[in-house]
Amino acid sequence: MKIEAEWMRGGTSKCWVFETGQLDETGTSPDVLLPRLFGSPDHRQIDGVGGATSTTSKAMILHRPADAGVDVEFTFAQVGIEEAAVDWGSNCGNCSAVVGLYAIEKGWVVPDGDVTRIVTRNTNTGQIIIQRVSTPAGALPIVPQAQMPGVPFPGYRVGLGFLDPAGKTTGTLLPTGAATDTITAGGTRWTVSMVDAGAPVVMLRAEDLGLDPERHASWTAGLELQLDTLEHIRRQAAVRMGLAATPAEAARAVPKVAVVAAPAPSDGESDVAVVMLSMGKPHPALAITGSIALTLAARTPGTLLGEITGGTAGPTLRLRTPAGVIETWSEERDGQLLVGVDRTARTIATTTIHLPEALGTAVDASLASATR
Amino acid sequence: MKIEAEWMRGGTSKCWVFETGQLDETGTSPDVLLPRLFGSPDHRQIDGVGGATSTTSKAMILHRPADAGVDVEFTFAQVGIEEAAVDWGSNCGNCSAVVGLYAIEKGWVVPDGDVTRIVTRNTNTGQIIIQRVSTPAGALPIVPQAQMPGVPFPGYRVGLGFLDPAGKTTGTLLPTGAATDTITAGGTRWTVSMVDAGAPVVMLRAEDLGLDPERHASWTAGLELQLDTLEHIRRQAAVRMGLAATPAEAARAVPKVAVVAAPAPSDGESDVAVVMLSMGKPHPALAITGSIALTLAARTPGTLLGEITGGTAGPTLRLRTPAGVIETWSEERDGQLLVGVDRTARTIATTTIHLPEALGTAVDASLASATR
Repeated sequence: MKIEAEWMRGGTSKCWVFETGQLDETGTSPDVLLPRLFGSPDHRQIDGVGGATSTTSKAMILHRPADAGVDVEFTFAQVGIEEAAVDWGSNCGNCSAVVGLYAIEKGWVVPDGDVTRIVTRNTNTGQIIIQRVSTPAGALPIVPQAQMPGVPFPGYRVGLGFLDPAGKTTGTLLPTGAATDTITAGGTRWTVSMVDAGAPVVMLRAEDLGLDPERHASWTAGLELQLDTLEHIRRQAAVRMGLAATPAEAARAVPKVAVVAAPAPSDGESDVAVVMLSMGKPHPALAITGSIALTLAARTPGTLLGEITGGTAGPTLRLRTPAGVIETWSEERDGQLLVGVDRTARTIATTTIHLPEALGTAVDASLASATR
Repeated sequence: MKIEAEWMRGGTSKCWVFETGQLDETGTSPDVLLPRLFGSPDHRQIDGVGGATSTTSKAMILHRPADAGVDVEFTFAQVGIEEAAVDWGSNCGNCSAVVGLYAIEKGWVVPDGDVTRIVTRNTNTGQIIIQRVSTPAGALPIVPQAQMPGVPFPGYRVGLGFLDPAGKTTGTLLPTGAATDTITAGGTRWTVSMVDAGAPVVMLRAEDLGLDPERHASWTAGLELQLDTLEHIRRQAAVRMGLAATPAEAARAVPKVAVVAAPAPSDGESDVAVVMLSMGKPHPALAITGSIALTLAARTPGTLLGEITGGTAGPTLRLRTPAGVIETWSEERDGQLLVGVDRTARTIATTTIHLPEALGTAVDASLASATR
């Protein structure tokens, strides 16, 4: 069996993009199909298309809905690496950046003016994301030339605007009702902010983890040594935010963890320093869904971010990440709030993936011995 | 520009397979083209098809030669990850296993009987590799079902036979003329065997590196702590084998390093325990070209391997590797020696890779600013 897919870079992730109809034709559940296509379970994913890291073991499933107000509906799949499983519990903001470009490249949306607007809806979270793709003079440039931190090569500029993102998972921006809370883990009491926007995020102060706020470049290594404690805090936060009944039942993907501090005095280019954790490891750049939560937290007095930024509702927030400074933006119009970030995206390859086995069918022992 | 390629698994590697004519059509040197297609330089290769590890950043370039005695000629490219460079200095045995299967799938060779024989020639080394692909009843099985250590999913069975492999790089099996030599590195004198077959390899005893011969599973971690010393030894060996004029000029890919010992008494399944180093790091399974050198060393009295095996010329040699036991075989017929190993291979995806930039062309500044 052969399955068509586009392999695309969205922001700092590589994403395999499928259309719903094509996956349906296989007659196999994506929970079974995607891990096999990716080569899971295998820490190297050597027999499949997965890249053996959390940012390169991702799939997007797209379709054009009947709803006239939405151009493309999409579902994000975090495909397990050592487990033959798919996590459907959250969206990926970096991969989201491929959706508008895909729609233009496939002719689903006709470019209109210097910036083409594509209305997309993520089914994992119900989040509407308004995408703005640069189409100067009404066309994609032949040679994409937009740059972004964390990616050494250019792509097409895509603005991602999350429409009224607060509370999409839990119902409210501050699921516990408080701007800060206390969580006990590893015998220590931690002051945290738990915020739901884009994705549920639990935030901690870098200082509280013994990290030097002025040496942001050293945080990732410092966090690697405290992953157990951070996971403990994250699982408790999952319960407090109403995402799980017990810490043991917490999903791997959410809540995400963000470690924050005021920028070093010498850093005139950012408003806040951050390292996020995603799927249990420090993120090499920034989980974009989580950056939406950070942006709303910065606008909310009393949260850890609000204390750093003064809770001002400026139009931009500059985040110092391991990959450089990433800027988010906020726009209020007609009573709606759009919170977003600019990414770049590009199609790496147009592919037909070969699926060798009929999944779920027992191996024919006589044939197996004949090929030895 | 778009470039067609098959993405194939060969043994424990993932390999991008191009045809010479298609690469020539781009008008760009593969030294420039391949790193860009792979997303190099970038330790994550996030904007290209590379997998960000040495075993997944590999390309094969194939063509059908005029020479009637050879079905397929192929060139192996180890594509740099953090450097935009290609190493052409050696062959890859795992990737070699895709060549016969590619020839059958593309109709270059018509399957003949239960096992189809494809004569291939590697241009990096001049090595003829006779490939035997299982084609029961004269066809590739619809569902490949052959297994091998280090790969959790089945593929097509491919036997790789290296024809008269001794001395293909340096001219002789023992380039220094001796079965063992002494190399001084890190203030210590090391007893080594330097052997050229399949690829040039320098062999050391596990005991001499302080590794417990009976705890093979612990070697990889132990070797990680001694990579500087091993690289020092490797570079000195490069000079002694005539591969480089000075240690500083030694290539990264060759010679390879093999750390060997007699198997643990409890291990009844292997003849020798080994961990190889490839591109400066412990190999997760086995560099197949290097396994050919180990096999001839085991047949040569006086080498470190010959001391372990007794120098007997048995038809098979069982190597305990981190991925399991891998068996090599030797056949003498009509005065020719065929040394080989069985792998599995499979086509993962048929692809068209998108090359966004005209390489070597300066960026058009006005267009760049228009897309921001």
